[in-house]
Amino acid sequence: MSTYHSFNFKQILMHKYLIEDEWMVIEDHFDPKFHKSSESLFSLGNGHMGLRANFEESYSGPSLQGSYIAGIYYPDKTRVGWWKNGYPEYFAKVLNAPSWIRMSIQVDGKELDLFTMKVHQFTRTLDMHKGLMIREFKASWPDGTTIKVETERFLSMKRKEIAAIRYRITPVDCSPEINANLIIDGDVRNQDSNYDEKFWEPITTKIKDHQAFVVSRTRKSGFEVCTAQWTQVQIYGDSETPKIQTNKDNESVSASYRSRVRAGDTIELIKFAAVVTSRDYTTNELILKAEERLTEVAKMGYLSLRTEQFDSWQHKWELSDIRINGDVSAQQGIRFNIFHLNQTYTGHDPRLNIGPKGFTGEKYGGSTYWDTEAFCLPFYLSTTDSQIAKNLLVYRYRHLGKAIENAEKLGFTDGAALYPMVTINGEECHNEWEITFEEIHRNGAIAYAIYNYIRHTGDDYYLAEKGLEVLIALSRFWSQRTTFSDVKQKFVILGVTGPNEYENNVNNNWYTNYLAAWTLAYTMESLDLVLENYPDDFDRVMELTGWPVKTEINRWQSIIQNMFLPENKEVGIFLQQEGYLDKEQMLASELNPAIRPLNQHWSWDRILRSCFIKQADVLQGLYFFEDQFDLETIRRNFDFYEPRTVHESSLSPCVHVILASKLGYTDKAYELYLRTSRLDLDDYNHEVHEGCHITSMAGTWMAVVEGFGGMEVSDNQLNINPVLPDTWKELSFTIHFRGLLLHIVANHKQITISEHQGKPFQVIVSRQAHRSSEGKPLCVRINE
Amino acid sequence: MSTYHSFNFKQILMHKYLIEDEWMVIEDHFDPKFHKSSESLFSLGNGHMGLRANFEESYSGPSLQGSYIAGIYYPDKTRVGWWKNGYPEYFAKVLNAPSWIRMSIQVDGKELDLFTMKVHQFTRTLDMHKGLMIREFKASWPDGTTIKVETERFLSMKRKEIAAIRYRITPVDCSPEINANLIIDGDVRNQDSNYDEKFWEPITTKIKDHQAFVVSRTRKSGFEVCTAQWTQVQIYGDSETPKIQTNKDNESVSASYRSRVRAGDTIELIKFAAVVTSRDYTTNELILKAEERLTEVAKMGYLSLRTEQFDSWQHKWELSDIRINGDVSAQQGIRFNIFHLNQTYTGHDPRLNIGPKGFTGEKYGGSTYWDTEAFCLPFYLSTTDSQIAKNLLVYRYRHLGKAIENAEKLGFTDGAALYPMVTINGEECHNEWEITFEEIHRNGAIAYAIYNYIRHTGDDYYLAEKGLEVLIALSRFWSQRTTFSDVKQKFVILGVTGPNEYENNVNNNWYTNYLAAWTLAYTMESLDLVLENYPDDFDRVMELTGWPVKTEINRWQSIIQNMFLPENKEVGIFLQQEGYLDKEQMLASELNPAIRPLNQHWSWDRILRSCFIKQADVLQGLYFFEDQFDLETIRRNFDFYEPRTVHESSLSPCVHVILASKLGYTDKAYELYLRTSRLDLDDYNHEVHEGCHITSMAGTWMAVVEGFGGMEVSDNQLNINPVLPDTWKELSFTIHFRGLLLHIVANHKQITISEHQGKPFQVIVSRQAHRSSEGKPLCVRINE
Repeated sequence: MSTYHSFNFKQILMHKYLIEDEWMVIEDHFDPKFHKSSESLFSLGNGHMGLRANFEESYSGPSLQGSYIAGIYYPDKTRVGWWKNGYPEYFAKVLNAPSWIRMSIQVDGKELDLFTMKVHQFTRTLDMHKGLMIREFKASWPDGTTIKVETERFLSMKRKEIAAIRYRITPVDCSPEINANLIIDGDVRNQDSNYDEKFWEPITTKIKDHQAFVVSRTRKSGFEVCTAQWTQVQIYGDSETPKIQTNKDNESVSASYRSRVRAGDTIELIKFAAVVTSRDYTTNELILKAEERLTEVAKMGYLSLRTEQFDSWQHKWELSDIRINGDVSAQQGIRFNIFHLNQTYTGHDPRLNIGPKGFTGEKYGGSTYWDTEAFCLPFYLSTTDSQIAKNLLVYRYRHLGKAIENAEKLGFTDGAALYPMVTINGEECHNEWEITFEEIHRNGAIAYAIYNYIRHTGDDYYLAEKGLEVLIALSRFWSQRTTFSDVKQKFVILGVTGPNEYENNVNNNWYTNYLAAWTLAYTMESLDLVLENYPDDFDRVMELTGWPVKTEINRWQSIIQNMFLPENKEVGIFLQQEGYLDKEQMLASELNPAIRPLNQHWSWDRILRSCFIKQADVLQGLYFFEDQFDLETIRRNFDFYEPRTVHESSLSPCVHVILASKLGYTDKAYELYLRTSRLDLDDYNHEVHEGCHITSMAGTWMAVVEGFGGMEVSDNQLNINPVLPDTWKELSFTIHFRGLLLHIVANHKQITISEHQGKPFQVIVSRQAHRSSEGKPLCVRINE
Repeated sequence: MSTYHSFNFKQILMHKYLIEDEWMVIEDHFDPKFHKSSESLFSLGNGHMGLRANFEESYSGPSLQGSYIAGIYYPDKTRVGWWKNGYPEYFAKVLNAPSWIRMSIQVDGKELDLFTMKVHQFTRTLDMHKGLMIREFKASWPDGTTIKVETERFLSMKRKEIAAIRYRITPVDCSPEINANLIIDGDVRNQDSNYDEKFWEPITTKIKDHQAFVVSRTRKSGFEVCTAQWTQVQIYGDSETPKIQTNKDNESVSASYRSRVRAGDTIELIKFAAVVTSRDYTTNELILKAEERLTEVAKMGYLSLRTEQFDSWQHKWELSDIRINGDVSAQQGIRFNIFHLNQTYTGHDPRLNIGPKGFTGEKYGGSTYWDTEAFCLPFYLSTTDSQIAKNLLVYRYRHLGKAIENAEKLGFTDGAALYPMVTINGEECHNEWEITFEEIHRNGAIAYAIYNYIRHTGDDYYLAEKGLEVLIALSRFWSQRTTFSDVKQKFVILGVTGPNEYENNVNNNWYTNYLAAWTLAYTMESLDLVLENYPDDFDRVMELTGWPVKTEINRWQSIIQNMFLPENKEVGIFLQQEGYLDKEQMLASELNPAIRPLNQHWSWDRILRSCFIKQADVLQGLYFFEDQFDLETIRRNFDFYEPRTVHESSLSPCVHVILASKLGYTDKAYELYLRTSRLDLDDYNHEVHEGCHITSMAGTWMAVVEGFGGMEVSDNQLNINPVLPDTWKELSFTIHFRGLLLHIVANHKQITISEHQGKPFQVIVSRQAHRSSEGKPLCVRINE
């Protein structure tokens, strides 16, 4: 099972070791057993690159070294037990890249290594407001030699190729010789390698004054990366000026600073790092570009660069912050999620996307799943300008050719597209037949994302520009993937896996069938819209796609009218798939907690034939299309399916929070919310050491804004229907909506909405339309 | 897909390079491109061990070295892409064992190696009548040195641990120094190793006079094997007496004979090999036992041992030969199959079973599949005494405890048993969830084998002795695996894979549901029978199994009465599974031959959602229970399903041949038969280099005897209804049946049946009962 979002709902032991604070994540003592978890949690990123919170200095204890560059991947040869026709040759993995943080600190010849030393007054702080990771500690060797270290680092949000470290060492009660060796290390490996191969090969190294460069190339995929440093040392106090020595071999460079430092004096090391790649430049100019970048920031100096970083994050927070008044824990949780989402994807490059672990671990290879369209897009739609959200759509548009090739491999023709389940470059990477070949609802999410983008931004020109081409290819897929059943006299879709991956190879998954028919209908509508409003584009797209073919239109219309949508009228529900009610019906609450999560206790066949649901399936459809179903239909289905749902995907609770809030099940909503918002911070799942659940974080954002905040776009209208948990005094958030930038503040009594520039706006609150006056916030009392 | 019987039905190119002969398989020239195929085809075995037809002398060309010992396996750590809960830790593989054939022949210092030399007058002959492999050739080095080699070898059918080689070398037109080095080589590897591990470790080596011993141990599983040789040399002519030199290292031993041999003189090397294992002896006595075995045969001498071998095979053929008069090609084909079946399993050891490739290759690890019960048992029932067939049942009886454990791993309780899909020692080895966990119909075949054994032998005491325990455990499994559907008000079986592996995870596979209900009913009958006839055994079994539990009986009865058996009355067929008729209906004949076999051209999902059938599924059930369905029901289902069947399993055609014969579709039957009887000899599938399809060979036997011969046991009566293909003048075969040994000779006009000792018997021919007179054959004219 591709449980890439495994989630233990029933969790006895949380690994709660961090201090709660509204803006900071703080670890206030050092325990090697939490180090790998902290390495994930304190990860930094800036969209272009990111790294786990590995220590700069040597560390001989358990650690997952991870430094990643967006879009730089290695095609790791597929490894399976039993090959199935159609499997991809490789899994493209974003890989552990040359390390630019590494240092070796020797004090009187003894290596600084917290795993072997006595550590005091340790703190590690993620300053989410400023985009900074800070660490302070004292460490003593057995002979009593003690030093104090203060280090901070950041990845520039403004200068995507730049990072900076300030590392200060102060001897305590002794005056040792300190040798600080600042390294760029090209000799790196992935823990996750199917055949224990090394993914990088060294190209060249170079040292020039304060700068040093390592150029490396990924094997097979041939990306070249120049990882470079500019280093500087300063002594605070009277100690001798350090001697510098540089070194290089074929894959590493270093600059070492040696000095006897008096007790109480401080040696400060500044390191600017640049990471430039052949994705942006020709291979010839990589060293030159790295040098330019480093020279720019060296001129600015560390403090100015840091101030620039604060400003960047200040701006990010103005647009994306959520305030939860009255609940520090929830406040920290949601900010932690928003912080990581902003670190992972900035929208500056439409060739990039969002991996389930972002830059926080190797797992899932940094690849893109349908999470992007179904769970991440709403966050970026609301918190960034439309170009950034649009780039998530453009990513798929750029892969359309590959998606058509992918469909051809599976026997589809005439421009039908099947987007990959997992991809970096547009090619399918996954290799479980029941997922790779059958979890085709991902195609529906890609169509839905286009619809969702336009409904939110109003930018219907996107259809003409790019969207329609994608929609036609998706519709062609659905049309070919649908079979007319003589027995049913309906169109059926056989052999699929729905969002609930605890069912495989089922027939007529309601969600998939609904999405398929909806996609066809939306494509037909879009054709009309583009024809009417953008006739030139219409002609171009018709030319390009060879559309419309008369027989295609007829078939599409016939499918839209005659799609089989399984339901049970007696129980009053849509059927997750044909035969679902033949299963033994049980509720999750009847399960022995000792066998939760099921995916760790039951064999796969038993999970498959049980009625238990991993994540929203029918309910995912009702969430997507909530304005197409009456409340009672949603209620009957929620009442039936939620109790059968074990939420063993981290993407499950959010959709349920949103529907529960809508249905007035506030307690249920809050109970589910609690389990997602601090999933990583409290490590409910005992797996944060592998990396954070980045895409789930976007689900949490949805749960707050679309659930408790009650935001919904329906009939081109913005709806806001806040339903706050009792413990929350006030909830506020900001959203972009069709050129407006609205700030919403809700408490249990009233809701206040203001537009950033004072533009007038209309909004539906609690099912009633309200219009603001220019320059004035809108205030609406909420009926209790 | 576990297409362990992949079979290309539409085959353009056959690799036909062998001479047709009634008793011999002959390769009359040497072509390295066929060598690996010949290595498979000319394999020898004696139930205890076997080997591919590797050359004794060095060979630097492509070759699959293979020497196997029944029951000696290595647990090779599982390798999968995505782990599923419940997967086994390892796949037990019968492994390439220390080589006892190896020789190095040097002629004036030049190595004999047919891959690099000029080869003339090469013949390789499998003498199936005598159980002998013979090879003759002349080979020349570039300098003109030419030798003639005649070699023959056999594995003793009477002395399971003994094999013999006679290797004669005659220099032609030169008198070179010949150095023949006879080796036991413990340094062997498997090509198929999941993690490139070596499976053997050396224990000790020993040389004593003419004998030499290598003791090796399998890693992890800890089997010890002593592989030993006794060697002798003789010169025919005046050449000098050879000098002998022995050598050993930690895993090999050798005896080399050096002599200058005059042109035309012959140096003859005799090698007796013994292979004794810790499966039969304590590890301390292995060398001693090997020495005893070798001393016995050394005393006899090569020629006496060979005569003994001829006698053994003479006896085998008396019981199992099939004569097809008028068709040499078919005659050779069926004898080749019978020969391999007799080589693979002799029934001397109930711990052994039949792997899909027997001793002819590494593939499928020598493990046991449901092939044994469904396809192999009938051959051994008819051609051997009942003890030998019974041992195939006892094999499963011995694994009952493990089958109960296996079921427990999947969540079953209270003594329910699920036999493994693939096993050597009773533990599951396979790791595809849709097969391992879901192809549970294998449990039905194991119950059916008990029924089939008793119906054929009349030995109903087997139920009391062992069968009932197995049946109760199987019934408990079915009872727990069955779900009561509130919607259908019937018992359903969800999430299975039927014999047609081109459908996975389906609901209510008719074959599985039918077998499940039948097993419950047969178990109930068997309980009554044992209670009545063997009350002491009944009490013992009740005590042992904790049966009967009242609630269990009630549920069993309810399932028997209310099992859901999907059918479509309009079309008049049983439904392979629910929803089968929702598929797009096409016939195999409409498929473009270029995309056959589908499993090499279509992605797995496409195969799954197509209507095409890999092998008999509903029809497998109608074959098993042919006396429970009227001819018209069988005909409607055959007419519907066979045209949708692509026969991409080598086990598919045989069942169809039998049903087609019964239905009078003789042309269809013969067309299908042709594609199986010489599957390996003509290498229809381009894969015989990997090994022969041993279990399919038993299917071919069934096709002849139960299809064209029309043998069927029904209501305790033997039926014979021959339907001969036009080209066959006469068909004769011998069968054991309830203490009778009947020889049947059928032509297009009449059938003659004689009992070996002249006992009187009754038989139904063409639906009419006939009774023989004592001492007289029965002659019945057939209505044309």
